[in-house]
Amino acid sequence: MYQYSELDRFNRSLFQHIGCSEEEAKIASEVLLASETRGIKSHGLLRLKEYVNLWRTKRLAENPQFSIVHQTPSTALVDGGKALGLVTAPKAMDLAIEKAKLAGTGWVAVRNSYHYGIAGYYAMKALPHDMIGISMTNANPLVAPTYSQKPMLGTNPIAIAIPAGVEEDFIADFATAPVNRGKLEMMHTKGEEAPSGLVQDKGGHATTQANILSHGGAIKTLGGPVEKGGHKGYCMAAAVDIMAAVLSGANFGPTVVPTLGYLKMAEGMIDKGIGHFFGAIRIDAFQTAEEFKAQMDEWVRTFRAAPPVEGQECVMIPGDPERKYEQECRENGIPLTTSTVEVVAALAEEFNIPMIKD
Amino acid sequence: MYQYSELDRFNRSLFQHIGCSEEEAKIASEVLLASETRGIKSHGLLRLKEYVNLWRTKRLAENPQFSIVHQTPSTALVDGGKALGLVTAPKAMDLAIEKAKLAGTGWVAVRNSYHYGIAGYYAMKALPHDMIGISMTNANPLVAPTYSQKPMLGTNPIAIAIPAGVEEDFIADFATAPVNRGKLEMMHTKGEEAPSGLVQDKGGHATTQANILSHGGAIKTLGGPVEKGGHKGYCMAAAVDIMAAVLSGANFGPTVVPTLGYLKMAEGMIDKGIGHFFGAIRIDAFQTAEEFKAQMDEWVRTFRAAPPVEGQECVMIPGDPERKYEQECRENGIPLTTSTVEVVAALAEEFNIPMIKD
Repeated sequence: MYQYSELDRFNRSLFQHIGCSEEEAKIASEVLLASETRGIKSHGLLRLKEYVNLWRTKRLAENPQFSIVHQTPSTALVDGGKALGLVTAPKAMDLAIEKAKLAGTGWVAVRNSYHYGIAGYYAMKALPHDMIGISMTNANPLVAPTYSQKPMLGTNPIAIAIPAGVEEDFIADFATAPVNRGKLEMMHTKGEEAPSGLVQDKGGHATTQANILSHGGAIKTLGGPVEKGGHKGYCMAAAVDIMAAVLSGANFGPTVVPTLGYLKMAEGMIDKGIGHFFGAIRIDAFQTAEEFKAQMDEWVRTFRAAPPVEGQECVMIPGDPERKYEQECRENGIPLTTSTVEVVAALAEEFNIPMIKD
Repeated sequence: MYQYSELDRFNRSLFQHIGCSEEEAKIASEVLLASETRGIKSHGLLRLKEYVNLWRTKRLAENPQFSIVHQTPSTALVDGGKALGLVTAPKAMDLAIEKAKLAGTGWVAVRNSYHYGIAGYYAMKALPHDMIGISMTNANPLVAPTYSQKPMLGTNPIAIAIPAGVEEDFIADFATAPVNRGKLEMMHTKGEEAPSGLVQDKGGHATTQANILSHGGAIKTLGGPVEKGGHKGYCMAAAVDIMAAVLSGANFGPTVVPTLGYLKMAEGMIDKGIGHFFGAIRIDAFQTAEEFKAQMDEWVRTFRAAPPVEGQECVMIPGDPERKYEQECRENGIPLTTSTVEVVAALAEEFNIPMIKD
């Protein structure tokens, strides 16, 4: 188990080595640690390797500028200038919140960015302002649209954070695909098969081979086949791709320049980074925050009180598993996976940063 | 096969009999016929029976007022005053579009409304303005959240319409549940079983009985079990419920006063109707519409060009099946299902309106 401050020390030092200012490094570390403490281990310190690779291969700009390309009272288009997503995205979400204060809602599209970590972190930034927060991003193409042989879309997550009063906030944070790369990798490491209907091979045929992505395979859309609604999952993932990447002018769908070794960059590809889309909705642009939060309390209580199916304790509120994990981390410290510790150890040596101590 | 004008004549006359002005009846008919001509037969003239029932049971107000309860530059809360959803919703979407003209985006939440027909109709209203349109609504509780024995959420559709240039527009319009009531009823009528994993019985156990909803059963969330991502479908349906019904102050989740005979109204329920949420996003609040639409053309071409899996012709663009159906209706007239014709015949007699001729 690791202390928050110890992991934070390491992250900050590393981020400053790869071009972040002290302030930027502080925020980037906060985003990464939100993943670790909310149990989204695939988006935690494990990703440091990928971020360092972006820096090493000079895909990160040396002196990146965050610029507002165009704006209206409720919108802005941001060019991240090829900074780390962890640096650009928090500023973009803050801008959406500022817009919402004046116009009722704020919507910010971002291009020339990279992996932004945990989607929920940004949506949750809206909560203390009595706003609903929304966050989405496109990503490396790993998901095959309905009827497609090939992966064309990212696992394109959406996060929606909605404030309640005395009850827990509603915090949905989910990939629009049924499973993510990290989980498949974990299954493969454990020698497990993937559940049926979640992945396909490079010809588009059904398979349960968990490491199929690195063999040209793809994740299927949420729902699976059309008779089970899989085309709806395609619609969701595609809508996120367009809102995050086409509206901002970033690379969309299969034109995303991959950050994964086994995805090849097509010839002549221009790197405008990936795109994000953020929203902030002021509750009192519709009704008083007090009334709304009292109704959300009622919503949460109503769903918690629903009789569960046999073998399950209760109906959960989106955000419950992450809240439970956070509580455990606060009490016992933060556990890291073996692969995460290996990544950190290698980076500690390379950048001559004292290794984290448990 | 029926002519558009003939069905329109019948609809307009009927809507005026149940309290609509001439202008309101014209628009309500247009929404219904959008369902018929786009092939969403469950939301077409078949629904007239339900609308007349709302009027007959005095759930529709006699002289309903559309009122803006609160607003900011980019938002409005609308009280539909218990008019038909088909009357209130088009006005609310128009308001969102007007807001977007000034503030970049417009967002309108609606309470005290009823079933609004085809979600896509409203989203598509944004397209001629070079805007992205968004539409969602809650509905009769038929969907069981993850781990719930009982239905708590509607099939809560989302529609997103995004303009392209010379290529077809992106028009996603889908229930957040894997299957809707209409499709299950159709399977039952044909003596078919439902595909496995889509519905559960009143104890929450798996079943393939297609008419299980009228026996206390429920539709499962998109994705099905947790290992296949069904909790993501729950998040989607729940988010729509909150955005449409809690943000507006309508009845949410299981407190929706049912319009289906087999769903019972709980004692002491207060009817604030169902809720809708509409959005309009001006493209040029981010970048020029020309640049964006050229990129959307590229998006559409890229996805159409993806190699399809064996046995399929091509990867579809959301909206393709409805476009094809519309084209067929333009060429050959509009087919009606037998049950729709029966509903229309009964209403023709009751209201003494000349029956539609094919």
